[in-house]
Amino acid sequence: MSEQKTAITPRRDQDFPEWYQQVVKAADMAEASDVRGCMVIKPWGYGLWENIQHQLDAQFKATGHKNAYFPLFIPISYLEKEAAHVEGFAKECAVVTHHRLEVGADGKMRPAPSAQLTEPLVVRPTSETIIGATYAKWVQSYRDLPILINQWANVVRWEMRPRVFLRTAEFLWQEGHTAHETREQALEETEKMLGVYATFARENLAVPVYCGEKSESERFPGAEKTLCIEAMVQDRKAIQAGTSHFLGQNFAKASGIKFQSREGREEYAWTTSWGVSTRLIGTLIMAHADDDGMILPPRVAPTQIVILPVTPKPDTREAVLEAARKLAAELRVQRFHGEPVTVEVDERDLGGGIKNWEWIKKGAPVRIEIGPRDLAQGTVAVTRRDRGPKEKEFLPAAEVAAGIATTLQSIQDTLYARALATRDANTKPIDTKEAFYAFFTPKNADKPEIHGGFANSHWCGNAACEETVKTDLKVTIRCIPFDAPEEEGACVICGKPSRKRVLWAKSY
Amino acid sequence: MSEQKTAITPRRDQDFPEWYQQVVKAADMAEASDVRGCMVIKPWGYGLWENIQHQLDAQFKATGHKNAYFPLFIPISYLEKEAAHVEGFAKECAVVTHHRLEVGADGKMRPAPSAQLTEPLVVRPTSETIIGATYAKWVQSYRDLPILINQWANVVRWEMRPRVFLRTAEFLWQEGHTAHETREQALEETEKMLGVYATFARENLAVPVYCGEKSESERFPGAEKTLCIEAMVQDRKAIQAGTSHFLGQNFAKASGIKFQSREGREEYAWTTSWGVSTRLIGTLIMAHADDDGMILPPRVAPTQIVILPVTPKPDTREAVLEAARKLAAELRVQRFHGEPVTVEVDERDLGGGIKNWEWIKKGAPVRIEIGPRDLAQGTVAVTRRDRGPKEKEFLPAAEVAAGIATTLQSIQDTLYARALATRDANTKPIDTKEAFYAFFTPKNADKPEIHGGFANSHWCGNAACEETVKTDLKVTIRCIPFDAPEEEGACVICGKPSRKRVLWAKSY
Repeated sequence: MSEQKTAITPRRDQDFPEWYQQVVKAADMAEASDVRGCMVIKPWGYGLWENIQHQLDAQFKATGHKNAYFPLFIPISYLEKEAAHVEGFAKECAVVTHHRLEVGADGKMRPAPSAQLTEPLVVRPTSETIIGATYAKWVQSYRDLPILINQWANVVRWEMRPRVFLRTAEFLWQEGHTAHETREQALEETEKMLGVYATFARENLAVPVYCGEKSESERFPGAEKTLCIEAMVQDRKAIQAGTSHFLGQNFAKASGIKFQSREGREEYAWTTSWGVSTRLIGTLIMAHADDDGMILPPRVAPTQIVILPVTPKPDTREAVLEAARKLAAELRVQRFHGEPVTVEVDERDLGGGIKNWEWIKKGAPVRIEIGPRDLAQGTVAVTRRDRGPKEKEFLPAAEVAAGIATTLQSIQDTLYARALATRDANTKPIDTKEAFYAFFTPKNADKPEIHGGFANSHWCGNAACEETVKTDLKVTIRCIPFDAPEEEGACVICGKPSRKRVLWAKSY
Repeated sequence: MSEQKTAITPRRDQDFPEWYQQVVKAADMAEASDVRGCMVIKPWGYGLWENIQHQLDAQFKATGHKNAYFPLFIPISYLEKEAAHVEGFAKECAVVTHHRLEVGADGKMRPAPSAQLTEPLVVRPTSETIIGATYAKWVQSYRDLPILINQWANVVRWEMRPRVFLRTAEFLWQEGHTAHETREQALEETEKMLGVYATFARENLAVPVYCGEKSESERFPGAEKTLCIEAMVQDRKAIQAGTSHFLGQNFAKASGIKFQSREGREEYAWTTSWGVSTRLIGTLIMAHADDDGMILPPRVAPTQIVILPVTPKPDTREAVLEAARKLAAELRVQRFHGEPVTVEVDERDLGGGIKNWEWIKKGAPVRIEIGPRDLAQGTVAVTRRDRGPKEKEFLPAAEVAAGIATTLQSIQDTLYARALATRDANTKPIDTKEAFYAFFTPKNADKPEIHGGFANSHWCGNAACEETVKTDLKVTIRCIPFDAPEEEGACVICGKPSRKRVLWAKSY
């Protein structure tokens, strides 16, 4: 009974959390830094983030938004302005108390006591308060509305149990902040941006998502409504991949965003905020990677195609390299979703097996090997990362470029279909408390991570039932799906009448 | 004697520093925030920064660099590792001492005493130390070199006298950090990246720059060589617009970046760092703006062409708007330096004069007016921002799109030629101490800003002469130009022999 060897140890089914860390490492995407909870995003991980940024940014602009930049620091008093916000949010922050270092009596550097700030500053955990204070100056009349602005930035939330990409003290994100004349316009914006995220997750990241509204207990502190996209990853847990908040007039009142209405009355603006972060990278990894490492959806891969010249003998080396470069040039003029296809020829002087496995672990969508024998036959060996490492297809070199966009789309579609199948197979309608508890209880004490998945069950709307489930099972309502049909039912916890099923799951 | 009215008050010749602030405001590019020394970069200013980023980034990638991201925070002990660096640099920082807020006895938020950090963190003022610590882990063998990485990030240097874009506590920048096997390779990198900056300044920003090396006293703390590009702005002062540092083995030794060489010896790597920042925006404004506001070089303008529909009467309004949108569509398929031409149709319901002057002040390169009369005649009125606000050219609408790339390039060239003429007219060879002092002494006590410009004068190489000039005149050596010919001369201050002229100026 031989077990097939995998590039990643442990496998997913052995230890999912450790497998995740090993994939991040093997794919060379990021690593922990010496600064507690802060990560270093390495070029392969950052290249992925750049593609996410670039593609999402185009969607933000297409929906009328512009980018701007607001201060990193927030005066501590700003956080006190919105009561729910400070209560639920702004506690675990990096607090700046001094603006100068000096050398102390022991010869070591220390914060200079003479340079203590009158009012401490926090490093932004999110920017509603500082941006609200700015909008209050910009808005006088209904003519100044809407304000449709997005910011790409770093934010800091002190984390006690950091995990690379998923939960880090510092992370990168975008935060949209808009202000509107009416409640309806702000609601429309909130929904529109959730739609942008959902489409992006499905089409660009190949990650299927449920769209819905959070229950009150899971809402963003200070929001009237929090909409979200929720993905299922391969251990059947949920990841909240993006949120869009309807803030009502709460932050406008806290910050003083007032305007003269069309009727000449002074009114408070209606605001929204919405964001996604480098957590999307963690989601991608957990959704698509396998026991050999990362598998990148072609639309966001930093390099879509890697050409591996196989050069066993010095006398054929130049001819092989030349053929590889020629093929690269032919591929680079092809387009995939409006962008030039990205190609790297790996000419490093390393063994072919080592290079091949590096790219498998990094998850490059397509690998193309060219060796002296291929040269003679006019073929190349094409391997898709969504298939086994030995499933090579030998194609005439002349045909590869013409078919590459189709191949890339096929990989993209396969990844989506696979993630969708996993999710749908593990999303179950559950109607009794007993079945519900059984669903979320690990079958095997050795693998506490493995449980049923998403339960689609009735809920009475009472926070007490949520609390019970959270305490007993560490399970929360991920969302009240938009498309859940109205139906007669009984709350899976208390049995009281319910009109809708909601999605319950363990989550990251 | 009527004085022509200008859109900006005061004019440049009346009060240059105040004129600058008013241009920033009138162009709607940025504003001060409530957080001391931190700015809000508004969409028009940020759009400019996005273009700068996008275009520079393409050059970094074309020269073999990849982007990555490193932590915002640096442990205080890291700064102590490189002696010159800490001495010259790392004092005025934002210091994080706590990681949690709590509500105090007075009901106000405060840093939680129980959450004091064991070791304070500083918000990065620059990242040599934290990136060096990371590279030390990445580099074992010569095979791991070179490392060619760039980071786009925010940095913080506490500033006592902030001035928007030029000197702010928080600013945006890029910092390249590379590590090499040999001294020669690192030196080559240092020069190559300065070349990238110089070309970008000239061709994309239309700002002529002198390229050279800093004298020892003006070097980056910890560097062996600092290369720079220096621009002259309209008050004849210098702005250091970009720097590229050859760090020798100083930071490698401080951080422990060691590798096994080809000969099997353990050696320290040779490193470089190089950066430009949002200060480039301040440089652009001071170099190109006039008494009516900003003038943007077309290559970096957020919007190159603004179409202003003139709709005096409701019955022709739709026809005019339709013609405007049609022209916009024709323009958008044109390309300028490989990118689609950017066009905005300003359909806001505001007076034509108000809208026109807004775009003049913002510095949009081309404005196109279309009204009912133009419609009848098949013409449009084209105004270039590098010419007077009333110098309209009436062109057949059908011809505008075809000629737009030529027009944009002509504006770009005019701005460069104008800046070059100003600089060359105010760069003077000066050979006596008397003339040197006279050159830098304001003629008019009311206008202390106005002085000669750049003095191209001999220097003996002695720091004492630099110090004298700095104390007496607030003038420094901006650079020892690469292209300065070797010639016999006498130091303009002490009269001792000198082999080269250097550039002296007042600077921002």
